[in-house]
Amino acid sequence: MSELGNPLRDPSDRRLPRIAGPSGVVIFGVTGDLARKKLMPAIYDLANRGLLPPSFALTGFGRREWSDEDFAKVVHDAVRANARTPFDERAWEQLASGFRFVQGELDDDAAFDELARTVRALDEERGTGGNHAFYLSVPPNVFPLTLRQLARSGLSGSNGDRWRRVIIEKPFGHNLASARELDAVVSEVFPPDDVFRIDHYLGKETVQNILALRFANQLFEPIWNANYVDHVQITMAESIGIGSRAGYYDGIGAARDVIQNHLLQLLALTAMEEPVSFDADALRAEKEKVLSAVRLPDDLDSATARGQYAAGWQGGEEVRGYLEEDGISADSTTESYAAVRLDVDTRRWAGVPFYLRTGKRLGRRVTEVAVVFKRAPHLPFDMTATQELGENALVIRVQPDEGVTIRFGAKVPGTAMEVRDVTMDFGYGHAFTQDSPEAYERLILDVLLGDPPLFPRQREVELSWKILDPVLDHWAAGGRPEQYAPGSWGPASADRMLARDGRTWRRP
Amino acid sequence: MSELGNPLRDPSDRRLPRIAGPSGVVIFGVTGDLARKKLMPAIYDLANRGLLPPSFALTGFGRREWSDEDFAKVVHDAVRANARTPFDERAWEQLASGFRFVQGELDDDAAFDELARTVRALDEERGTGGNHAFYLSVPPNVFPLTLRQLARSGLSGSNGDRWRRVIIEKPFGHNLASARELDAVVSEVFPPDDVFRIDHYLGKETVQNILALRFANQLFEPIWNANYVDHVQITMAESIGIGSRAGYYDGIGAARDVIQNHLLQLLALTAMEEPVSFDADALRAEKEKVLSAVRLPDDLDSATARGQYAAGWQGGEEVRGYLEEDGISADSTTESYAAVRLDVDTRRWAGVPFYLRTGKRLGRRVTEVAVVFKRAPHLPFDMTATQELGENALVIRVQPDEGVTIRFGAKVPGTAMEVRDVTMDFGYGHAFTQDSPEAYERLILDVLLGDPPLFPRQREVELSWKILDPVLDHWAAGGRPEQYAPGSWGPASADRMLARDGRTWRRP
Repeated sequence: MSELGNPLRDPSDRRLPRIAGPSGVVIFGVTGDLARKKLMPAIYDLANRGLLPPSFALTGFGRREWSDEDFAKVVHDAVRANARTPFDERAWEQLASGFRFVQGELDDDAAFDELARTVRALDEERGTGGNHAFYLSVPPNVFPLTLRQLARSGLSGSNGDRWRRVIIEKPFGHNLASARELDAVVSEVFPPDDVFRIDHYLGKETVQNILALRFANQLFEPIWNANYVDHVQITMAESIGIGSRAGYYDGIGAARDVIQNHLLQLLALTAMEEPVSFDADALRAEKEKVLSAVRLPDDLDSATARGQYAAGWQGGEEVRGYLEEDGISADSTTESYAAVRLDVDTRRWAGVPFYLRTGKRLGRRVTEVAVVFKRAPHLPFDMTATQELGENALVIRVQPDEGVTIRFGAKVPGTAMEVRDVTMDFGYGHAFTQDSPEAYERLILDVLLGDPPLFPRQREVELSWKILDPVLDHWAAGGRPEQYAPGSWGPASADRMLARDGRTWRRP
Repeated sequence: MSELGNPLRDPSDRRLPRIAGPSGVVIFGVTGDLARKKLMPAIYDLANRGLLPPSFALTGFGRREWSDEDFAKVVHDAVRANARTPFDERAWEQLASGFRFVQGELDDDAAFDELARTVRALDEERGTGGNHAFYLSVPPNVFPLTLRQLARSGLSGSNGDRWRRVIIEKPFGHNLASARELDAVVSEVFPPDDVFRIDHYLGKETVQNILALRFANQLFEPIWNANYVDHVQITMAESIGIGSRAGYYDGIGAARDVIQNHLLQLLALTAMEEPVSFDADALRAEKEKVLSAVRLPDDLDSATARGQYAAGWQGGEEVRGYLEEDGISADSTTESYAAVRLDVDTRRWAGVPFYLRTGKRLGRRVTEVAVVFKRAPHLPFDMTATQELGENALVIRVQPDEGVTIRFGAKVPGTAMEVRDVTMDFGYGHAFTQDSPEAYERLILDVLLGDPPLFPRQREVELSWKILDPVLDHWAAGGRPEQYAPGSWGPASADRMLARDGRTWRRP
């Protein structure tokens, strides 16, 4: 397959092909959800778009007694079920010829020696050029073991002739101290530039569009500050419960699972100053600056809210409460809803609260950043004319129905001057014919290209924990999360939290 | 008919009923296009919406040998053909019982005496309360005669017990001197507060929405100035030719017909400072301030363009050129296309050109105000990433497809950071269930209510001529208008006019 001639190649890439050079990916945890639902399909989609080299290799490592062909069958099923682009036999054959499987336990030295031999053989026979990325799609408690094995078997270590990179997924620890411990383990084996921490939100088109929206335009940046903005609401709501993920979720909770990473990254992109460029150092420096300026209010009872979904009816279906879910103990204090008010102590944002919230079993699945503006300083209308006029808002819809909405006041048709809120809308799906790549396509390609702007570095992880640790400690110190009805928008305490500030949550 | 119980009453009027008190309208020129297509339907629509009093009376004055019933038949046909709201028998009967017709010539004293008797009889029998508006839907050359007759027969003259108002339509003169002469004639008979000059553009919802958009919102006013705006384009394009209106149009031309009134009013609403209120005095004071700050460039050859449509094909139809139209002499220099660059010498707008253009037989029928913003001062993107990024723009679509569009740059889906222009849109038709009233409904109701903010006063008329007179004199001094192809966007000189400034006309 020629990577230049593929008609499926993303037309947006015509000027900057950004095709990965000779390289391979090794996945630990091939039987997990992430590998099957996201990683394998993303790798196929990249290959199908012509963005992977013909020599590309994908190696699975796991306990199963699989042959290379068994592994290829697993990838095939995952691709057929979850790939974004159509199935192309030639693209598939080319990609599948680079599939390998190494069987073993993580504590099995011989298995890692075999992995090292496999990788060397790929370099010699297929031409992967010594360049390999190791995707740790395994629980963080086995990170240290896996990393030691990579070092021991000689798989880690970039040099002038080759690169070796490691990809890790959240959670990056469960507080500041453990995040530092984890990093100590990682950085013993991989230097910072070879560590790629995935926050898949940063791979989303709509999240990157925050940068385009703010910095490619003249319209928005002049009003993107405390002079004009009243507050910002960042929401990630899910309508589902925890499903079968009790083992992962309990003891983690909504704040660690979502606020620490996704929502604070969205806050950083929304609130940061313009970077000198979108190079990794420049971009991450600005994100770190704004994260280091984030301040929790003193009164954490007033400035935070948490809850657990109760049993009840949602969308015509009877659903279990959080405490009745399989694998959750009846006295769990893990929150399935978390909200927090943050202030940003910068000239741009002083006095503008950022309200972050996330939860499961809420009204609907939606992620958005809503910049809510102050009312006009003066309204030269009759009092009655503006009774139905709210605040202007600019809403970045991260998912679903990706796009941007502006809410503003317009004249109501009629022979009086009456003003009411209306919206204008930009929808990604309407504006562009091409599909958006999945976040993992973008991020895996960036790893292979060694292009790190979309990967938070350790300092961002630590700054985020510094923000969140006092909240988690405060919650751990006492009380239980408040119950909220499934399909609602969270506990009453969350509404009171905003009501104290004279504001209300959006019902997105 | 009860004006309170009518279910067709505009729901937007529920807080401010704005129902006219006892009153009547007298139309001079009942057989003209304006009366049949706009005035009669608008009066019916107002009645049908419950905004006219049960006592309302409509009197026609004309040469035809019509009875009241003949006149009612004419109004009926006009309403059936052109009214906006459904035909309601009860509303019609109530309205039609107040129809009168007075036959006569404008120089016939007896006819005006009869008109005066008719009006007095309406006051006594029907209860119009002595309040009457005289709509001069006749050519301006007979204004003096008509006004003298109104005075002579005692029809003019408000006092504490009654009001008498006069409604006049453009052209308000054909230059500054003649506008002053006309005003001298009008103001001899009617004091300024009783004179209602109709620029029907000001009755349009979308034009009034410029005020709502600018002053009810926080979003737009901060960037509505020379710091952020590159230039403004105000366009009124028609796809039709002059049709049978040679008698009116020749010797008038595009600049007098459209720029002097509609386009300069749109400029005034777009560029003016926020008025203290929307009361007539406050609003008109701001419009006059900005009109008095408008400056023509010194080099009128570079800063203006004019043209005449040539014969050719438009939309699959062969059409005549302007000079071949019935009633146009082959050596006419009247322009059917006019464009002019204006500067506004205020702190807000210094250095921001306002380009106004209007023409017949252009690409399509559209009226819009496009505020075009500067590019962002710095683009922290790769050079190639912004090749397809234009300037941000906010476009107020006055007609058709009434609404507001914002053009801005968004990330193109794909694994590179590429930015391209997209639009977000607000459409009146989608946002509101109720139809917009016709401009004439609003304006006639305002006359009956004595509510003058939407009517330009004499000073605005004079300021507009002051702006335009040098252009007209310059054109009259030499040369002929350039020919342009029907269905095009005007003469090549108009494109050169913007190209000199490094800009291009929008293709709306």
